Amino acid sequence: MAQGSQTLRISIFRLFLLLMALSSPSEGGWRWGILGLGKIADDFATALTRTSVASAGGRLLACACRDEARSRAFGTRFGLEQSRCYGSYDTLAQDPDVDIVYIASTHFLHRDHVLLCLQAGKHVVCEKAIALNARQAEDMYACAKREGKLLLEANWTRFLPAIRRVRDLIRTGELGEVRLVTADFGKVMNRQDARRWLWEAEHGGGALLHMGMYPVTLALLASQDQHEPAVQAIGQLSEGETGVDQNVAVGLRWPGGVASLGYSWVADTPEECVIVCSKGRVRIHPPAHCSDTLTIKRFGATDGTRHAEGSEEVEHFPLPAVLAREDGEKLFHFGNSEGLAYEVEAVHKALSDGLTE
Amino acid sequence: MAQGSQTLRISIFRLFLLLMALSSPSEGGWRWGILGLGKIADDFATALTRTSVASAGGRLLACACRDEARSRAFGTRFGLEQSRCYGSYDTLAQDPDVDIVYIASTHFLHRDHVLLCLQAGKHVVCEKAIALNARQAEDMYACAKREGKLLLEANWTRFLPAIRRVRDLIRTGELGEVRLVTADFGKVMNRQDARRWLWEAEHGGGALLHMGMYPVTLALLASQDQHEPAVQAIGQLSEGETGVDQNVAVGLRWPGGVASLGYSWVADTPEECVIVCSKGRVRIHPPAHCSDTLTIKRFGATDGTRHAEGSEEVEHFPLPAVLAREDGEKLFHFGNSEGLAYEVEAVHKALSDGLTE
Repeated sequence: MAQGSQTLRISIFRLFLLLMALSSPSEGGWRWGILGLGKIADDFATALTRTSVASAGGRLLACACRDEARSRAFGTRFGLEQSRCYGSYDTLAQDPDVDIVYIASTHFLHRDHVLLCLQAGKHVVCEKAIALNARQAEDMYACAKREGKLLLEANWTRFLPAIRRVRDLIRTGELGEVRLVTADFGKVMNRQDARRWLWEAEHGGGALLHMGMYPVTLALLASQDQHEPAVQAIGQLSEGETGVDQNVAVGLRWPGGVASLGYSWVADTPEECVIVCSKGRVRIHPPAHCSDTLTIKRFGATDGTRHAEGSEEVEHFPLPAVLAREDGEKLFHFGNSEGLAYEVEAVHKALSDGLTE
Repeated sequence: MAQGSQTLRISIFRLFLLLMALSSPSEGGWRWGILGLGKIADDFATALTRTSVASAGGRLLACACRDEARSRAFGTRFGLEQSRCYGSYDTLAQDPDVDIVYIASTHFLHRDHVLLCLQAGKHVVCEKAIALNARQAEDMYACAKREGKLLLEANWTRFLPAIRRVRDLIRTGELGEVRLVTADFGKVMNRQDARRWLWEAEHGGGALLHMGMYPVTLALLASQDQHEPAVQAIGQLSEGETGVDQNVAVGLRWPGGVASLGYSWVADTPEECVIVCSKGRVRIHPPAHCSDTLTIKRFGATDGTRHAEGSEEVEHFPLPAVLAREDGEKLFHFGNSEGLAYEVEAVHKALSDGLTE
C-alpha cells in the first residue's frame, strides 16, 4: 500500500480517465460505505465529500451504525439516500453497490467488522489501530489476500504530502543515513469524559494504540520500514483493575539508528518530530502527526568535532482546500482533518492500479 | 550542593562583605588553582578572570599540567606568576596558598586527582563526569566529608540562570506536576580527530559521560532530584575492542513522570528540552545544556479532552558580560562558556556559607 501513495504522481484528470475505463466502480468512481459513525467518521465523510482531492475518485454512498436514527441523521448531513442509512453493520456489508467500507468503530470491534466486510466482497479501510495484536492483524490480512481485496490501516499520517516529502528525503539519501529520531504525542484525556473502553486493556485501551502509534509511525517511516526494531518502553499505567499505559518513554533501535519517543494522555506535549541524519536533519512541525510544515537543515562540512553551519529551509505543504466551506464554518472535529483526503486519494489510486496489499 | 545554588539570592555586594568578614580566603577572595590545562580549563579560567560575576569572589592563583612549558604558557595567558605554573599535579596540591582546585583532567584520572587535592586540604570542583562509576564517586565524597572540604561536580548546567528559573517553576508548583520530559544532546565526533580514550570503555569513554549526562541532568532536575528513577537504554555501540555507547535512546521513570532522552556522537541533534507539566510546559531553547532562553506555555482550562489555548511567554537570561573583551575577540572554545561564571559564583557562595556538600 505504501508503494501506491509513493507514486501518486498522476494528475486528477488522468486518474478520472483511468477510472472511466475501469468497469468495477460506477461512473461516479469508487462507492464508499462508512461503518461506525463517531467523530472520526464524520471528519472522514467531510474529507471524502467536500475536498476535490478525495471526491475526484469516489463518493459516499452508504453508512451504518447500530442506532438507525443516528445513521439517518449522519446520512442527511452528507446527502445520502435515507434507504442507504443502515441500522446494522451486516446490511451495509451486504449492500451490493458499495465497493469500499471505511471502518470507524472502536479498536476491539475492528477484527469482526473487517472480516465481515472482506467476506462480503468489499475493500476495507480500517481506522487505526486496525487490531489489538499481531495475531488479529495476521488473520485480517490473510482474509484480504484470500478474498483478493484491499485492506488498509487508516494511518493517515503516511499519506500527507509533508510526510511523503520526509520519506523522499530519506529514501533518496539526500540527508544521508538516519541516526536519531525524536518524536512525541501527548494529549490530556479526562477519564470522566472519555469512553470507558479506553481504560480497559482487554478492549484495546491505553495510550499506545490511541496516541503512541503516531510517534512510532514516524520512527518506522524514518527507518524506511526496513527493519523490525528492538523496542524498550518505560512508564506509568493508569490506576484501576486493568491498568493501561498512559505515560510512556519508548526507545527503538534498528541497525545504525535509534528513536527516542514519548507518548502520553496525561501530558499535552508539543507534538514535534526531528529526524537527525548524517548530512542534515528535518523537523516536522506541530502537530507532527498531521503536519503541513517542515524545516530542513543541511549540515555544512564537519571540522572533525562538529558540523559547520549549513542551510536551513522551511517548506509548506498546504492541506487540501475544502469545497463550499462557509466563512467560519467548523467542518472538522479534529485538527487538520482535511488531510484525510490524501488517504482517500491514495486508496482510489491503489484500487485503480489493482493493488490490494 | 544543589541547595547552595537554589538560594543564590544574595547580591554581589553582600557576598563581598561576607567574604571580607571571613578569615579563610585572602583579601582577594578564594584563590583557585587549575589542574589539567585543556580547552575546558581555558574556558573556565577565562570565565573566572574576565567576568565580574565570577571574579567578585575569587581569583586564579596557580595552574598545573604534566608539561611545565604548557603550564607556563597557560599562566602567561591569564597573568599568573610563573612560579605558580607547575609541571606536576602534586606541587599544585601542596601549594599552601591555593584554597580551591578546579580539576579539568580526563575522566579516568578524576578519582586520583580529586583525592590528591582533598587530602592536601583543598576544596575541589571537578569536571563532569566526576567519576567512572558510583563506587568511585562514593569514595570521593566520603573523603571530602572526612576532610571537611567542598567537593562539587562541575555540572555547570545546574547553575545557569535559565535553568535555575526552570527549577523554580517546577519547585513552586507553578506549572503543576512534571509528567513528561524530552531532551536530546548530540554532536558528531570524528574518531580520527578526537582523543583515543573517548573510545575506551576502561578509560570512561563513550557518549554517556561526555554528552548523555546533559539530557539526564535536565530530566533529573525536572524530577526535582527526589527520586532514583528507573532507567532503560537502547542504542548502538562503537565498533572496536571495547565498544562504547555512541547513539542511545534513554527512558527514565519516576513516580508520576517519565523522560524520553536521546544522546549521540554520531548525530548533530537540535539540543532542545521540553518539560511537560500538568498546568503548562517549558521549552529550554538550544543549546539546552547552556541555554539562555525559555518559552513558557501555560495551559488554559481543559474541556475534558484537551487544554484550551493558554498564554506563551519567552524569557531571556543573558549570559554574564565578559570584561575587557575586544571586538571580535574569541575568548571561549565552547559555546556559551561565559555561563561557567555562574558555577564559580555558586562555589564562592557555598564556601562563604560554609557548605561542603
